Amino acid sequence: MESCEMKKVLILGAGTMGLQIGVLCGASGFEVTIFDAFPEALNRAEARVGKLAHRLADHNRFAREKVAGALQRIRFSSDPEDAGKDADFINESVPEDPRIKAEVFARFHKICPEHTIFTTNTSTLIPSMIAEATGRPDRFLALHFHDCETTNVVDIMPHPGTSEAALEAVRGFCTAINHFPIELKKEQPGYVFNTMLSEWMGAALSLASKGVASVEDIDRAWMGIFRSRFGPFGIMDSIGLETVYKVTAYWAGRKNDPRGQKNAAFLKEYVDRGDLGKKTGKGFYSYPEPEYLSKEFLKGIY
Amino acid sequence: MESCEMKKVLILGAGTMGLQIGVLCGASGFEVTIFDAFPEALNRAEARVGKLAHRLADHNRFAREKVAGALQRIRFSSDPEDAGKDADFINESVPEDPRIKAEVFARFHKICPEHTIFTTNTSTLIPSMIAEATGRPDRFLALHFHDCETTNVVDIMPHPGTSEAALEAVRGFCTAINHFPIELKKEQPGYVFNTMLSEWMGAALSLASKGVASVEDIDRAWMGIFRSRFGPFGIMDSIGLETVYKVTAYWAGRKNDPRGQKNAAFLKEYVDRGDLGKKTGKGFYSYPEPEYLSKEFLKGIY
Ligand SMILES: NC(=O)c1ccc[n+]([C@@H]2O[C@H](COP(=O)([O-])OP(=O)(O)OC[C@H]3O[C@@H](n4cnc5c(N)ncnc54)[C@H](O)[C@@H]3O)[C@@H](O)[C@H]2O)c1
Ligand SMILES: NC(=O)c1ccc[n+]([C@@H]2O[C@H](COP(=O)([O-])OP(=O)(O)OC[C@H]3O[C@@H](n4cnc5c(N)ncnc54)[C@H](O)[C@@H]3O)[C@@H](O)[C@H]2O)c1
Repeated sequence: MESCEMKKVLILGAGTMGLQIGVLCGASGFEVTIFDAFPEALNRAEARVGKLAHRLADHNRFAREKVAGALQRIRFSSDPEDAGKDADFINESVPEDPRIKAEVFARFHKICPEHTIFTTNTSTLIPSMIAEATGRPDRFLALHFHDCETTNVVDIMPHPGTSEAALEAVRGFCTAINHFPIELKKEQPGYVFNTMLSEWMGAALSLASKGVASVEDIDRAWMGIFRSRFGPFGIMDSIGLETVYKVTAYWAGRKNDPRGQKNAAFLKEYVDRGDLGKKTGKGFYSYPEPEYLSKEFLKGIY
Repeated sequence: MESCEMKKVLILGAGTMGLQIGVLCGASGFEVTIFDAFPEALNRAEARVGKLAHRLADHNRFAREKVAGALQRIRFSSDPEDAGKDADFINESVPEDPRIKAEVFARFHKICPEHTIFTTNTSTLIPSMIAEATGRPDRFLALHFHDCETTNVVDIMPHPGTSEAALEAVRGFCTAINHFPIELKKEQPGYVFNTMLSEWMGAALSLASKGVASVEDIDRAWMGIFRSRFGPFGIMDSIGLETVYKVTAYWAGRKNDPRGQKNAAFLKEYVDRGDLGKKTGKGFYSYPEPEYLSKEFLKGIY
């Protein structure tokens, strides 16, 4: 943390991402406040955060010795005044709705000190959509995390009004939490990785939904030719088919794209059956031992 | 070769692909004739085929002991009558132009025995485009190879008029040459792997051509998050930027797609400079030691 002058991190939203990021910050030595508008969410969060810290340590996201310290440095709050008044840095993980995000930032703008940097963990929106509403567009940008259990790559995405000083502060923050930033030079919904990922998954879904080849053969082609440990359908099972379905349906609707609609309909059959992927034990493959990880799967391919 | 009743394979086109496939067939015990309409091409081919056989053996595509046998079983011909009269199986690798392919097949239809199976190695066309012109649509389908040095995955793509017997013969042929077939249930330009590959590369190119992120950061995002040994730009360098440019420009024109046109213009700068990728020593990276394979490239990502 030597390189970082900020000490107090405020996480907005005590859901899946907020808790992971909060634990990472705690393990890195920051004093962390996790804020949520819903007391029930905070109750659930307090119960989950210990387990989560151990899981992140299991995945080598930080040293096991840091778990206790991380937990000690995290507090929970549903009082905006109390949570925001001395924050140096905010990362926001409230629901993916620009109105909710705009409202939350506007509220904390009134509470937080002048110097506080505001960052959003949005997956699909771009900062300029809500920059004015934050009240401090120059100190606002996106800092986007991926699955904290599996990677330390993060995206930094400023909007045209973000100051160089704010950008520099976020770079320092990434160093302090030992994360590797991919810095975007222009706004791009989906950033870099997710943009490629969703086109790749879309192509695979389209081959399957048109009946060109089986899910297994599509994965086999990618895995066999590239010697990769996974193909697109294996990855979708890990992400969760409900999430893939929602994103696919959203963009298909927004772009009025028949291919995307066909893909969404294909996914919906799995979602309607409750086959949501790895977490439910069944998706395109069955878990915990999916066919694509078996020796037989690529047998005959060398 | 036990499972295969066919003995004599005729390769049409003595270029990059025709020679590789011819050598593979020779190493698998087939008697191989490589036909080309241009005697100069055959002269070049005769000089190259020995080197190629050794290279395929180097890449473990077949046992080194088989090189001599493979070469002994290959002959060259520019006489259609002589080349075609007793062929059991044709795989065609003439230029990617439906008129040339149609003409070549029509010519060999008149020469070849009734039972000869005709297959095309086309990358982007679909069999039904030229099925009637072959004179034997029921015995015609696509059998498409990837880079023979790095994979034994092949695509089998029938058109609606392909007979089950022809399909079965091609499956047997794949077994005989120890190749793993991905069988398409419907025609799809680009088959399975190339369809995903080109959308993935297109997404990456678009991020770079719009100036969202650097080529290195785009590769780094994919490699770092997926723990992959390569990213899209490293792969494009291996394929060859002229090939990627041609395919991108072709589809951008055909679909009147502004994004594709921007991607093509981005690639054209490299092509115009002669930076065609790995084979010229420079493309997105410099060879033989491209930055993306260095330890430094993913430093800080775990
Ligand atoms: N889940 C992922 O894999 C992932 C990855 C990267 C980024 N993101 C982004 O992170 C954000 C959160 O996603 P998530 O999966 O953690 O969602 P989640 O539903 O698990 O958590 C959202 C939390 O926000 C709280 N909340 C709702 N309204 C609020 C308000 N007005 N003020 C404060 N808290 C409020 C909810 O009570 C809940 O605890 C989204 O923008 C999403 O796009 C998600
Ligand atoms: N290069 C690849 O990576 C690759 C991979 C898979 C499939 N393919 C497909 O394979 C086919 C050939 O590609 P290539 O890269 O080997 O091309 P190439 O240019 O290296 O070879 C084509 C050969 O066909 C010969 N030819 C031209 N007209 C002919 C005719 N009328 N009759 C007989 N021979 C003729 C040429 O003299 C040349 O030797 C194309 O359809 C291509 O799409 C290429």
